[in-house]
Amino acid sequence: MQTLSEYFPFWAKLNESDRRALEGAARKAKLSAYERAGKNGDSCAGLLAVQSGRLRIYTVTETGKELTLYRLFEGDICLLSASCMFRSLQFAVRVEAEEETQVIVLPTESFRPIAEHSAPAANYVNELMASRFSEVMWKVEEILGKKMDSRLAELLLEEASLSDGKTVTVTHERLAAHLGSAREVVTRLLRYLQDEGMVRLSRGKIEIADEARLQKLARETA
Amino acid sequence: MQTLSEYFPFWAKLNESDRRALEGAARKAKLSAYERAGKNGDSCAGLLAVQSGRLRIYTVTETGKELTLYRLFEGDICLLSASCMFRSLQFAVRVEAEEETQVIVLPTESFRPIAEHSAPAANYVNELMASRFSEVMWKVEEILGKKMDSRLAELLLEEASLSDGKTVTVTHERLAAHLGSAREVVTRLLRYLQDEGMVRLSRGKIEIADEARLQKLARETA
Repeated sequence: MQTLSEYFPFWAKLNESDRRALEGAARKAKLSAYERAGKNGDSCAGLLAVQSGRLRIYTVTETGKELTLYRLFEGDICLLSASCMFRSLQFAVRVEAEEETQVIVLPTESFRPIAEHSAPAANYVNELMASRFSEVMWKVEEILGKKMDSRLAELLLEEASLSDGKTVTVTHERLAAHLGSAREVVTRLLRYLQDEGMVRLSRGKIEIADEARLQKLARETA
Repeated sequence: MQTLSEYFPFWAKLNESDRRALEGAARKAKLSAYERAGKNGDSCAGLLAVQSGRLRIYTVTETGKELTLYRLFEGDICLLSASCMFRSLQFAVRVEAEEETQVIVLPTESFRPIAEHSAPAANYVNELMASRFSEVMWKVEEILGKKMDSRLAELLLEEASLSDGKTVTVTHERLAAHLGSAREVVTRLLRYLQDEGMVRLSRGKIEIADEARLQKLARETA
């Protein structure tokens, strides 16, 4: 599979036998919209290289609240789908396709022994983990530093930018799952945003009515 | 410095010249209570091995709120004091001694080149980062899953366990900084806990009056 060299920058620094081992083990997989990776109990399938589509990485609290930690797009590598590689990684996240998503799976059992002896592979994993750790720290700062209305405004702008720039077709329930909040809270805040003229609500969609004011609200700190 | 082999499990797998380089570069440092590591602008001093005392790793939001992410004790290694080793680590934390703390500093400029070519060193860093990432994820789950009164109850029990098991001598302001909250909120909640008979407040200290009920409150999910 010649594309592995495009996704994994340490490829050129692997020896021939490591490359052959990974090429032999790599496989393509397709996830449908809203399908979870590892849903068949294989929660540590391996590194996932996103060829097309979009992955959502989220956590679920004891009480069932979801919070989107970050999203991965074309060219990104999902590390936490290989979390069992790290003895000290003591948390679980879920990985879900947000639309039809094509990935290359580098199985954990093939990649782990290579990272163990190859410093370039291990350091690549370090950078990947540092990057995902950073995403989570930004989320912490967002949660601490912003009120829910600002976080919702930011999310609506992000969701709109993923469609036509003006319309959000995501349910209130999913918006709540992104924010770590409850559907009722989101519905109440959306009505407030509509009263203020920032959005227009209609069946199954939310239209951005005043992008400038939503952006201003999204930037507000608590 | 023969103690490096005790702190760093990859020591036995380094070659002789790497060991000599680290031994030559390592130095001891002492932090007073409430002194910040890297306060002289050197925010990327290196890995810190805690020989005695206690470090608090915390973040500060745009609006100046503090949140304690985790603490490090004797034998622990502080990784984020070497954050500039990782191009993809895009956040800053602060490191502060909570009491007089003795550390061994492994300077970033000496450790970085070794992690670049030594797979055992790089994999050790991976495990360290996975461990700190896990601490932050637990914090996220705590913030999402618990109300502030439960989080305060948990913190009071933790603080008491670090002193005599019964008394907390930390100011309301510092309790707020641990929780990512405001002093006023903490003072109000402490008065509520006192009204409920769970704590007794007096000048400069908080006594645990009903440990069992505090533990029950600490376990409650929102």
